[in-house]
Amino acid sequence: MKQIGIADTTFARFDMAKSAIDELESIGTGFQIQRYTVPGIKDLPVACKKLIVERGCDIVIALGMPGRKKLDKMSARIASEGLSQVQIETMTHIIEVFVHEEEAADDKELAWLMDSRSREHAVNAYDLLFRPKKLQDNAGKGLRQGFADAGSVDAREGIYH
Amino acid sequence: MKQIGIADTTFARFDMAKSAIDELESIGTGFQIQRYTVPGIKDLPVACKKLIVERGCDIVIALGMPGRKKLDKMSARIASEGLSQVQIETMTHIIEVFVHEEEAADDKELAWLMDSRSREHAVNAYDLLFRPKKLQDNAGKGLRQGFADAGSVDAREGIYH
Amino acid sequence: MKQIGIADTTFARFDMAKSAIDELESIGTGFQIQRYTVPGIKDLPVACKKLIVERGCDIVIALGMPGRKKLDKMSARIASEGLSQVQIETMTHIIEVFVHEEEAADDKELAWLMDSRSREHAVNAYDLLFRPKKLQDNAGKGLRQGFADAGSVDAREGIYH
Amino acid sequence: MKQIGIADTTFARFDMAKSAIDELESIGTGFQIQRYTVPGIKDLPVACKKLIVERGCDIVIALGMPGRKKLDKMSARIASEGLSQVQIETMTHIIEVFVHEEEAADDKELAWLMDSRSREHAVNAYDLLFRPKKLQDNAGKGLRQGFADAGSVDAREGIYH
Amino acid sequence: MKQIGIADTTFARFDMAKSAIDELESIGTGFQIQRYTVPGIKDLPVACKKLIVERGCDIVIALGMPGRKKLDKMSARIASEGLSQVQIETMTHIIEVFVHEEEAADDKELAWLMDSRSREHAVNAYDLLFRPKKLQDNAGKGLRQGFADAGSVDAREGIYH
Repeated sequence: MKQIGIADTTFARFDMAKSAIDELESIGTGFQIQRYTVPGIKDLPVACKKLIVERGCDIVIALGMPGRKKLDKMSARIASEGLSQVQIETMTHIIEVFVHEEEAADDKELAWLMDSRSREHAVNAYDLLFRPKKLQDNAGKGLRQGFADAGSVDAREGIYH
Repeated sequence: MKQIGIADTTFARFDMAKSAIDELESIGTGFQIQRYTVPGIKDLPVACKKLIVERGCDIVIALGMPGRKKLDKMSARIASEGLSQVQIETMTHIIEVFVHEEEAADDKELAWLMDSRSREHAVNAYDLLFRPKKLQDNAGKGLRQGFADAGSVDAREGIYH
Repeated sequence: MKQIGIADTTFARFDMAKSAIDELESIGTGFQIQRYTVPGIKDLPVACKKLIVERGCDIVIALGMPGRKKLDKMSARIASEGLSQVQIETMTHIIEVFVHEEEAADDKELAWLMDSRSREHAVNAYDLLFRPKKLQDNAGKGLRQGFADAGSVDAREGIYH
Repeated sequence: MKQIGIADTTFARFDMAKSAIDELESIGTGFQIQRYTVPGIKDLPVACKKLIVERGCDIVIALGMPGRKKLDKMSARIASEGLSQVQIETMTHIIEVFVHEEEAADDKELAWLMDSRSREHAVNAYDLLFRPKKLQDNAGKGLRQGFADAGSVDAREGIYH
Repeated sequence: MKQIGIADTTFARFDMAKSAIDELESIGTGFQIQRYTVPGIKDLPVACKKLIVERGCDIVIALGMPGRKKLDKMSARIASEGLSQVQIETMTHIIEVFVHEEEAADDKELAWLMDSRSREHAVNAYDLLFRPKKLQDNAGKGLRQGFADAGSVDAREGIYH
């Protein structure tokens, strides 16, 4: 039984974990979910490390919503750097799912974006853990999470296997 | 008996530690406070590591007030990066409570903001240590420390448990 | 038999790995290719570390296409920092092949640039592994990957050996 | 006998070490000074680590003067990040005393600022080593090094002990 | 016999290593040179670590020429951060000799600057290894490498020994 960690925050304006967990449970089985909620995104790296080291998670989904202020951007960078460090140190993937508040035009779109990006990245986490071949088949396809895919600019026939 | 570390600076223009300690003592018992004062925010990371490693703290609250100059912003980033590294390395939460001087319109609001943010983050530290379920119940609620909460944009019924 | 790792993403809009692998196979033999596809560039550092530590790669080529938004630039920096850390930690070269979407004027040039830079850096990876003397012979020559070489401004006769 | 390290540069336009050492010797006794001069501020982190690990310093004062160009600001950040890392790794304070060239209006003020900031931070280093209670008594007082103190905005009676 | 490492790139537009080696050989003896050429500046940190750990270098000179584009500045920062990390980890000096392409007005000045800065920093590396007292005698003298020295603003009589 694989362990999937979910780290999220009280700062975010949408329960991204609910979406991610709902999506994971709709994809398949063979995993348990470990959840860890912290105040803000800068608290996520150590939470993720604890999920990996103390609770034995095989992969973690880190959910957060950086605010629209300049100081929030600095927090986002510190958080991302920390998540990167924890991944390298523990040799475990942490799928960072950040929705920056200003990416959405209004509250309704923000809710939609936070829901859909959380769901699509939950699939990525599942794929990394259970079906990496699916990711390789989509290499270079210009995939996006939340908004529409950008698509490929590759005019060559066939894809290398 | 849990140990809560409080690291603060002589650079800040308000005794944030006084507020944090006062708040902690009003919430509950079962902990002792270890305090460590340094000159500026860039001195906080090693102070926090010492509180954790040498004085056995289970969590640390790092209090600071970055100034309004551009150079102060660089110091804030270096300090935050260091606090993040110490957390990852020691697998211990450090709640960073920074009030940037320019967040407040005048000295009076600055004092109010430094007091209230220190108090609300003291509660977060207490919750991480003693009642993590409370944080999970507030996941995605758009909570803020100091200024008013941003609130949720989540229109779904109920919260996932 | 040397192992060359190829890490790439589903975010990129061109199958850079196909180009790199095609180029490597046209240069010579004596190596096997290990491929690892992740969602985005921030997932590359841990993928590269896994290729090195778990799959025994002697060098890795990390392929990615940062988007044109400001947030994408932050992701590129986090990814690059992580790739640098993994190299230092494992004492193994990772050739970062990033094509920023805005470097190309249109989709056609983007495809050309992603193809040619991937190929030219595949040669660099091969040279680091099998013929380092060729790199030394080109020291200070103003070489570029993708767009035209900048060339040397060195008017001295001969090159030091 | 405590060891106080002094790391400085040939790049700076004032002999900050002379000021720091003069100040230290005027405060008290019980310490020896270990000095290490490097070319520029980016050479300071490894110098400080050598002072701590190889020469047994209990604290280090790192003195530097970043220039006024944009590239100098990048160097300052790299240097500060390195100093932060060395502190965390060795669990030893390094008091960073940087005077940015543009902080002063002219050469005369620059000399004054480099002298006074070096002296006031030498006192901070001494206090961290020998009398930490003095720092705690000044928590939140808005102290500065070089230019005038900013002062407190705290209107509460008394200071928490 | 001391080992001096020289790491350089094929990206640079001038054979900086030739200048540094020529200068080193004109200063004195008692050392051997180990050279390692990589494609770009982001490949320098791991090359320097290999020179130190695998080839036993006592000091390394890292030579590079960041280009004039904004993306080149990000590469320069990543490279500098990596060089700083390697120094701290190996407790060995790496003298970073970067000439940013835009520092020179034209190709002729660029060649001159890359030559002279490489030579003057080669002397710094030699001094750190063989005569550290010379550096201390020049502390605070406003020395520069390439362009003219900035000079001291220190009006005090004598220099502290």
